Amino acid sequence: MGGFYIGRERRARKAYGFDDVALVPGQKTLDPNDVAISWKIGDLTFPVPILASAMDGVVDTRFAIQMGKLGGLAVLNLEGIQTRYDNPAKAIEEIVYSPSQKSVETIQRIYRTPIKEELIEKRIKEMKKAKIPVAVSCIPQRAARFASIAEEAGADIFVVQATVVTTEYLSSKGKKLDLSKFCRQLSIPVMVGNCVTYETAYSLMQTGIAALLVGVGPGAACTTREVLGVGVPQVTTTIDTSAARDDYFKKSGRYITIITDGGMRTGGDICKALASGADAVMIGSAFARANEAPGKGYHWGMATSDENLPRGARVAVGTTGTLKEILYGPAKLDDGSQNLTWAIRTCMGYCGISNIKEMREVEMVIAPAIKSEGKFFQEAQRLRGK
Amino acid sequence: MGGFYIGRERRARKAYGFDDVALVPGQKTLDPNDVAISWKIGDLTFPVPILASAMDGVVDTRFAIQMGKLGGLAVLNLEGIQTRYDNPAKAIEEIVYSPSQKSVETIQRIYRTPIKEELIEKRIKEMKKAKIPVAVSCIPQRAARFASIAEEAGADIFVVQATVVTTEYLSSKGKKLDLSKFCRQLSIPVMVGNCVTYETAYSLMQTGIAALLVGVGPGAACTTREVLGVGVPQVTTTIDTSAARDDYFKKSGRYITIITDGGMRTGGDICKALASGADAVMIGSAFARANEAPGKGYHWGMATSDENLPRGARVAVGTTGTLKEILYGPAKLDDGSQNLTWAIRTCMGYCGISNIKEMREVEMVIAPAIKSEGKFFQEAQRLRGK
Amino acid sequence: MGGFYIGRERRARKAYGFDDVALVPGQKTLDPNDVAISWKIGDLTFPVPILASAMDGVVDTRFAIQMGKLGGLAVLNLEGIQTRYDNPAKAIEEIVYSPSQKSVETIQRIYRTPIKEELIEKRIKEMKKAKIPVAVSCIPQRAARFASIAEEAGADIFVVQATVVTTEYLSSKGKKLDLSKFCRQLSIPVMVGNCVTYETAYSLMQTGIAALLVGVGPGAACTTREVLGVGVPQVTTTIDTSAARDDYFKKSGRYITIITDGGMRTGGDICKALASGADAVMIGSAFARANEAPGKGYHWGMATSDENLPRGARVAVGTTGTLKEILYGPAKLDDGSQNLTWAIRTCMGYCGISNIKEMREVEMVIAPAIKSEGKFFQEAQRLRGK
Amino acid sequence: MGGFYIGRERRARKAYGFDDVALVPGQKTLDPNDVAISWKIGDLTFPVPILASAMDGVVDTRFAIQMGKLGGLAVLNLEGIQTRYDNPAKAIEEIVYSPSQKSVETIQRIYRTPIKEELIEKRIKEMKKAKIPVAVSCIPQRAARFASIAEEAGADIFVVQATVVTTEYLSSKGKKLDLSKFCRQLSIPVMVGNCVTYETAYSLMQTGIAALLVGVGPGAACTTREVLGVGVPQVTTTIDTSAARDDYFKKSGRYITIITDGGMRTGGDICKALASGADAVMIGSAFARANEAPGKGYHWGMATSDENLPRGARVAVGTTGTLKEILYGPAKLDDGSQNLTWAIRTCMGYCGISNIKEMREVEMVIAPAIKSEGKFFQEAQRLRGK
Repeated sequence: MGGFYIGRERRARKAYGFDDVALVPGQKTLDPNDVAISWKIGDLTFPVPILASAMDGVVDTRFAIQMGKLGGLAVLNLEGIQTRYDNPAKAIEEIVYSPSQKSVETIQRIYRTPIKEELIEKRIKEMKKAKIPVAVSCIPQRAARFASIAEEAGADIFVVQATVVTTEYLSSKGKKLDLSKFCRQLSIPVMVGNCVTYETAYSLMQTGIAALLVGVGPGAACTTREVLGVGVPQVTTTIDTSAARDDYFKKSGRYITIITDGGMRTGGDICKALASGADAVMIGSAFARANEAPGKGYHWGMATSDENLPRGARVAVGTTGTLKEILYGPAKLDDGSQNLTWAIRTCMGYCGISNIKEMREVEMVIAPAIKSEGKFFQEAQRLRGK
Repeated sequence: MGGFYIGRERRARKAYGFDDVALVPGQKTLDPNDVAISWKIGDLTFPVPILASAMDGVVDTRFAIQMGKLGGLAVLNLEGIQTRYDNPAKAIEEIVYSPSQKSVETIQRIYRTPIKEELIEKRIKEMKKAKIPVAVSCIPQRAARFASIAEEAGADIFVVQATVVTTEYLSSKGKKLDLSKFCRQLSIPVMVGNCVTYETAYSLMQTGIAALLVGVGPGAACTTREVLGVGVPQVTTTIDTSAARDDYFKKSGRYITIITDGGMRTGGDICKALASGADAVMIGSAFARANEAPGKGYHWGMATSDENLPRGARVAVGTTGTLKEILYGPAKLDDGSQNLTWAIRTCMGYCGISNIKEMREVEMVIAPAIKSEGKFFQEAQRLRGK
Repeated sequence: MGGFYIGRERRARKAYGFDDVALVPGQKTLDPNDVAISWKIGDLTFPVPILASAMDGVVDTRFAIQMGKLGGLAVLNLEGIQTRYDNPAKAIEEIVYSPSQKSVETIQRIYRTPIKEELIEKRIKEMKKAKIPVAVSCIPQRAARFASIAEEAGADIFVVQATVVTTEYLSSKGKKLDLSKFCRQLSIPVMVGNCVTYETAYSLMQTGIAALLVGVGPGAACTTREVLGVGVPQVTTTIDTSAARDDYFKKSGRYITIITDGGMRTGGDICKALASGADAVMIGSAFARANEAPGKGYHWGMATSDENLPRGARVAVGTTGTLKEILYGPAKLDDGSQNLTWAIRTCMGYCGISNIKEMREVEMVIAPAIKSEGKFFQEAQRLRGK
Repeated sequence: MGGFYIGRERRARKAYGFDDVALVPGQKTLDPNDVAISWKIGDLTFPVPILASAMDGVVDTRFAIQMGKLGGLAVLNLEGIQTRYDNPAKAIEEIVYSPSQKSVETIQRIYRTPIKEELIEKRIKEMKKAKIPVAVSCIPQRAARFASIAEEAGADIFVVQATVVTTEYLSSKGKKLDLSKFCRQLSIPVMVGNCVTYETAYSLMQTGIAALLVGVGPGAACTTREVLGVGVPQVTTTIDTSAARDDYFKKSGRYITIITDGGMRTGGDICKALASGADAVMIGSAFARANEAPGKGYHWGMATSDENLPRGARVAVGTTGTLKEILYGPAKLDDGSQNLTWAIRTCMGYCGISNIKEMREVEMVIAPAIKSEGKFFQEAQRLRGK
């Protein structure tokens, strides 16, 4: 694929993100009401191709239940506040009300309280009672232990997630997860992530997983990329891992769901992820703005609590509407953060696309967006006290 | 045409907008007074190659009359405030004086009042009385009904406009427009839009239209692109659809007028659209700044009133001069927003071009402009209260 | 030279400006004191390769005299305030002290006073008395008349300047200048500009001129580019016109001096212009900051006074030091705007270059600079009242 | 290697900096505790691949001792305040407490006091007493004299540093350094810099040096690039000079250490330098933020004191933590400026890399970062007084 010389005898590919591309309308158009936007993982079908990230400012049991009722899927973090505190709301309040300069420190302290395994069972049962599909997550090191508790408690999907996951993790301390064995032993579908390349995606698919989360350091201003230098923009990542999915499907007959995770702020970004080959997307900050989100307009990443190298501070996003408005509208804002399903439907209509899988046939053009400018003016207006 | 790899086995073309290119002066130069800038649609000839968009903050009957007298063409929206209210000025005032945070909501409410068909006839007759060429617009779903009213009332041009228009619109509800039949049955020229690709432009031209509006999500900070991910920068769009026009002309002998619609803020942008192959351009916000514009320094898009997914809020642009100053000067501002015809003439003079059609022979270079910087400093100055 | 597709069957070259490139140090280095930076026009040799633009906020007779004594060359505008007013200082004061919003209007009014031909002679004689080389300028339409007055009064160089100059200017009003005849009849060297392409440069050189000013709409935020769409970034322009100079020299044996005019703000920009092939550079705003500049920290372009389409407002740049400090230091500022000759010498030393003509052998890399960021923070600091 | 046309018959390579690229995670991952990050110069091995720049606001003897004890290496400037003043702290205070507009002037004055050779010996002995490896630096013109004093006083590494160093420096005044002879006569390893190209790096390696500092005008907003036009972004520079190192090693069997110097602000930038081929990196401003830095939250470059052409003003960076926190954490900030060794380790773990030399096998993608945006919002928040 060539790439460009970045120095003597060294080439690099150019990778593209959401702000680098735009979708081209098609030669036919469809009524947005006539397009299908459902997706599947294992035997479960979901009407809304959007998942909520396992972030403590976004997903608690109440949020997950509401999300499930609306046709989406929220992942509950088994290593966060929900399983460390009997009263998670109080712990979250401490984070939310701590002053800005102290927020990283407060988050680190709150996450020092040990996980109570009985709370894993309790939280899952709270959600199951509402008859919604339940998805829970933890890091690879704890997956073997927590997955068996979760499975027993009735969870429907188990998510194994770290910043970067591969089939071959080497540690002198021996805390490794044999993913193939793990998938074989578990009766519920396993979702794994995150990864970014064709090769890693393909090797992870061979372990028996049902879905793959893709995205590492996706955004141009992403903290992982700032702190560690690591990251690949999401359009390229999604195209590459989707190619692995298609190749693996051709060879094995098994279709692994690709879920683009991170870096999407608007309906437009979601549409571009789907056009890049994703079956669904996972979103954090857009849901943090829901009235139902436990973070009351704040959110923070899973790496913020890291004792050694916190990445991503507490971010104030405000609350702008209900989860229902975010998913189904009517939108009260014109910034692309509400009525996400109608944005997907309208985009598909304009592009003449009748279902999610066809979305990857939409033509993309390279056409840089200048989001910062718009933001600048919003910010400037706020500065003027307007 | 190649394009660039944006991921495994997937390529994308790079598309260019006004801020990406600049025009190169020629080997000869002309006196700006000696160049011809008129254009045609059907049998009508206009001395000014600039149309005013069918936006309610820009065009009412009074504005259209003044525009017509000055040699331009303003399109009146048949689905906006002018045909919903006997006293449109009052409805517009409600929008203009509503507080910022309520403006989308107010606009949505104002547009909930049903269209009165008798007002279609009334508005057209008001304009005809002034002996100017009258152009009116509506969406495809209502075109068949409204066009016959408009034709009878004396309209000279009928515009069928939606964000994206194709020859093949599919809907299970059956609200479709057969464009070929529509053009055949109507005695006045039909202008249709918007579209962006060679293929769609070509197929639309085959239906018998007289003019094509091109441009979908054109700007780098455009709301359609933000909310839906859809959009193509205007220089590439205009070049592509103009190529369709030329190919169709070679084959059929019929010359379809290409009108670049959207994304132009300055005389320079207009010149670049013409150099890309446009026969004329359609402009909104530059005219919203006219003293004569009904919006009193505010404007809003046709999608702002969308109940489900409003796109584009009310924007404050201020009033900066008369329509005559905007079209013919003398310019009181140095930002390229006034004396647009003289800007076109001067540009043509520098490039040695004697009429609009030759403009497409002007050499363009890729040379990114940094408009945001200038804007930033203007904004910063305002912040300082200067 | 290929270029890139910007649309169907249409290609454009990418053009580069000062902010797009950087110079690469060489394999040897030189003591900056040992490099030669002089240049020639006709038989005149100047120790400093920097000219001051014919702008009324920059050059009056006093400034030109000081510039000449320091080894540079300032061009006096024969169509500006100096030849319209017996007391130019008073007229300039009116412009300087007019409020921001009125400045364009004031400038237009001030320039409405007719030119007094006797003042042409008077100003030139004032400068000749100081025994400096005198350069004066006007537009092509007035060149024939003014040049003969200037020649008689003792001017050493005559500059014919307009935004765009070609050998073939067509006007139905017949106000044309036959450049070949003009050069033949005048006994002093003729400098002409501005132009940007190889072809136009080559044809202008054939008329007998001694020097060529290159640059049209050079900057990324340039008003000519904003208002008219016309412009080519200076690095590419200078390389192209320098190639014409070299080819013409090979053919004719006559070496025409190339002077890059416009868009340079720092010593670094000047060095890049020289590395692109310029023999010297012409600068405006950097000199407007001199204590000696008549504009007292303000300047405005020659197109600001345009009655129809003013381009470029009055800009406040402040005064930061003496002309001597700007040319020879010591620099009191670290922003590259002072001690320009030492900046050129140091750059040449780092690149191992011993005279201006060798500068074009310096390797350039494409390496975008982010000047706006630095500016932003300066601006932000000012906003904070620091 | 082709490059791009920047004008007629002239091509330029595109050069890449830290903000232009990102690192791609690997197919295997490692425990960050299991990776090796040590590096060598001559016979000395250092556990931390980070050096502190010879800047007076960063390194005094106390700082160098603390740095040495933590496993890093700080270079003491032999031509700065430490060797001009018996009480350097007082001189630094004058700089730190001078008002902003006077800072360049104050710095120029402070550096006018002559160097006392007895202080060279004294400072080195102060550091040797703490049993740390001692590195000291001066410019080529003084290297012969100062190196013999430093060697005698017990220095372990001698650094010869100027903005641009080549093997061939020509001066009519004859102040030249014969680097080959210099290296032969000195018993301690010699580090030389700065340079940026393969050819210059290769020729410098042939003189017998032990390590090479690479980087000239590295940053997109760098003052050297602004003032002189000279500079090459660091990713390309490091790849190019590393290629010279590898080629020279193949030919001679001598491995010269490449140290990327300048332009790195975060752990991510350091990781990218290592992935480009550096054996270690040299950093200034990140260390200026240490509590232990003598500049009390301010720093200034070696060229700020230049009497003729000061480059780089006094910059306020604030103090954010201890040197130990900067090197080994725990990080209290999430901006990538603390716990740099853990950032390197984590990055290497994600990329499946077990030692520094393998880092150059990590895949890079071209993926522009928008650091300015993040900064903008921080700035905007501060403006709001939050």
